[in-house]
Amino acid sequence: MSEQLINTVENGTVTSARGFTAGSTYAGLKTYGQDKLDLGILASDKPSAVAGVFTRSKIVSSTVTLTRQRVQSGRAQAVIVNSGCANACVGPQGMVDAMEMASLAADKLGMAQESVLVASTGVIGVEIPMSLIRPAIDKIEMSPDGGHSFAGAIMTTDTHPKEVAVSFEIDGKRCTLGAAAKGVGMIHPDMATMLCFVGTDAAVEPGFLQSTLGAAADSSFNMLTIDGDTSTNDLLVVLANGDAGNKPIRAETPEAELFQQALSDVCQTLARMIARDGEGATKLIDVTVEGAASAQDARKVARTVVSSPLVKTAVHGADPNWGRLMMAIGRSGAEVQEDMLALYLNGICMFDAGAPIPFHKDLAVLSMKESDVKIIVRLGLGEHSATAWGCDLTEEYVRFNSEYTT
Amino acid sequence: MSEQLINTVENGTVTSARGFTAGSTYAGLKTYGQDKLDLGILASDKPSAVAGVFTRSKIVSSTVTLTRQRVQSGRAQAVIVNSGCANACVGPQGMVDAMEMASLAADKLGMAQESVLVASTGVIGVEIPMSLIRPAIDKIEMSPDGGHSFAGAIMTTDTHPKEVAVSFEIDGKRCTLGAAAKGVGMIHPDMATMLCFVGTDAAVEPGFLQSTLGAAADSSFNMLTIDGDTSTNDLLVVLANGDAGNKPIRAETPEAELFQQALSDVCQTLARMIARDGEGATKLIDVTVEGAASAQDARKVARTVVSSPLVKTAVHGADPNWGRLMMAIGRSGAEVQEDMLALYLNGICMFDAGAPIPFHKDLAVLSMKESDVKIIVRLGLGEHSATAWGCDLTEEYVRFNSEYTT
Repeated sequence: MSEQLINTVENGTVTSARGFTAGSTYAGLKTYGQDKLDLGILASDKPSAVAGVFTRSKIVSSTVTLTRQRVQSGRAQAVIVNSGCANACVGPQGMVDAMEMASLAADKLGMAQESVLVASTGVIGVEIPMSLIRPAIDKIEMSPDGGHSFAGAIMTTDTHPKEVAVSFEIDGKRCTLGAAAKGVGMIHPDMATMLCFVGTDAAVEPGFLQSTLGAAADSSFNMLTIDGDTSTNDLLVVLANGDAGNKPIRAETPEAELFQQALSDVCQTLARMIARDGEGATKLIDVTVEGAASAQDARKVARTVVSSPLVKTAVHGADPNWGRLMMAIGRSGAEVQEDMLALYLNGICMFDAGAPIPFHKDLAVLSMKESDVKIIVRLGLGEHSATAWGCDLTEEYVRFNSEYTT
Repeated sequence: MSEQLINTVENGTVTSARGFTAGSTYAGLKTYGQDKLDLGILASDKPSAVAGVFTRSKIVSSTVTLTRQRVQSGRAQAVIVNSGCANACVGPQGMVDAMEMASLAADKLGMAQESVLVASTGVIGVEIPMSLIRPAIDKIEMSPDGGHSFAGAIMTTDTHPKEVAVSFEIDGKRCTLGAAAKGVGMIHPDMATMLCFVGTDAAVEPGFLQSTLGAAADSSFNMLTIDGDTSTNDLLVVLANGDAGNKPIRAETPEAELFQQALSDVCQTLARMIARDGEGATKLIDVTVEGAASAQDARKVARTVVSSPLVKTAVHGADPNWGRLMMAIGRSGAEVQEDMLALYLNGICMFDAGAPIPFHKDLAVLSMKESDVKIIVRLGLGEHSATAWGCDLTEEYVRFNSEYTT
């Protein structure tokens, strides 16, 4: 975490903030995975401010359609999520099932149907087996300690759950912000790139909650790419129940800045966890672009480099083939001048001021065998910077995705 | 070839048209490949009309800079090409070497230096070893039968040469158009995606030659993707020497239409050859989009589907996982309505009017084990269509590109 005012909560989960409970069970939708949990609920003890960021795909799951509608009211209290089936591309039955899932969760929790959000992840084009969902919902036991179990239930091909919580002080009140995310494939910049749920006990004014969530997504999940593909189901939702007792946080105040920082830290931490757990990945790639003429240019270059298959395979092979970085930078669409450019790979300068720098190749290869590869691109054209995260492209990714349904 | 007026020339090469000679040799630049030819020259017997399409990357080889300049005059007579070294990202020495290559070829051929174009392909960031190039140029024997040897010399990781020629009649004169191309990686839509050289004995008005070349590239190489990456060195050049004796072809005439068709046919044939020979590829993927609201939408959807890693891996695994097609269509940015959409995979309808169609899965799997996989997307929103070509993503691609320089 980048700010001393923001502390990481040990063993933090999505229920670390006051007033949140969660639980999960195995309904039988998921035929793979270690934990075999596939249905989870996250709930707040009272109606909460809510904000959401959704996939920009034109073909979306009914769960995205429904949750997007319900988030517009600015208030929600719970989310029900399943893994194993995306409830996408199944015709009108999709919305019928999404609404029934919300309705069943609302009955169980004793809250208004409209205050329950729905999310799904898994195979596209298959109707969700409601005959399995209905009895399973009853089996879910809600608990303040249920965060970890919830994080397990939203996983698909993830190899481990992704969760984090931080705390910070607002108005002399200790606030906590916890989150759980999933996602390892079909992940790409500029989309709300996976499922992520955030619960905080801070009181936050709903308009600010939405804008701060968008900003946090832009500097985290929207700078993340695994394979360039984007799901029909991605969403990021935050519930803020106000249990900390602070005055609601409004935009353009010191408290807003602190909250924004905490939310961005949490989202960036989860984005890095997701990149590192990319399908088949063995390495995290971190690309930082400095000196861009505009913020947009910085983002373009960082995202193009981190998503280039030739860069990803070079990193996989621990090959300091910096020509591939130049290729990706050149095709990014950003303003670039070859003679102003400098390239660093794991701190080793390979290109500067329009010319290659002779570098110790064995040393570079050795450094690239570590699990983190850091690329810095200095464009020398301005003051803007950006960081993007991704992973290497491996034979295992290809094998895995060639054998997914058959 | 799609028009009966246009006939394929048996064993056609880039020198099939009258007045063209070519030759090649091994200079020692290329340390891989079967044929070990790495330096070639293509020449016309007289100054010719010339047109070119170039990479849109902001970081380009000096050979692209120089050839782009020289093509602007509308006249050229020869091209010298090497494989094994890209002459890119090497500072000012790049232009010095590119100009010397052109100059040496001009001296050998006895023509003006400005009328010789240069192209390079290979590793980025290494100076081209002119000490090897200089003596090798003398060894090249130019011949009307040298087309096949030229096609071999421009290959890098290609497994076989790519060449084709067609003939057609204009003004009662038989015209021939021959071409050679290379490219198997770093290939993506919207760029002049590889090296391609076209020689024709038709007389063509230079302004029309440039516009018709742009149109041919848009329906062929710009609809081709191997890995989404784009080279610093890509170019497509056509020389038209007029040896057929026809009146120069001008825009908006029946002759122009025939020539456009012949050039597009040749470029599409080469584009398919390149897709099929994609690094590590085992299958050609052909995506046709029909019923789009605009030509741009049709192109967007076709190119997004054919370049999706998840579609490419599904095709590799002969997996009729049409949800991945929906995912790619949805994120393409084109206007799309789920309930108007129909999907066909190798002729089998999998989705229609907003709902999945139960299909014989074993049959679909079997058909996907063939070397050609054809995907048709009907958007149902308009009259526009487009076709894009690509290949499957394999473990071999990853292995190959993880081990390229080290």
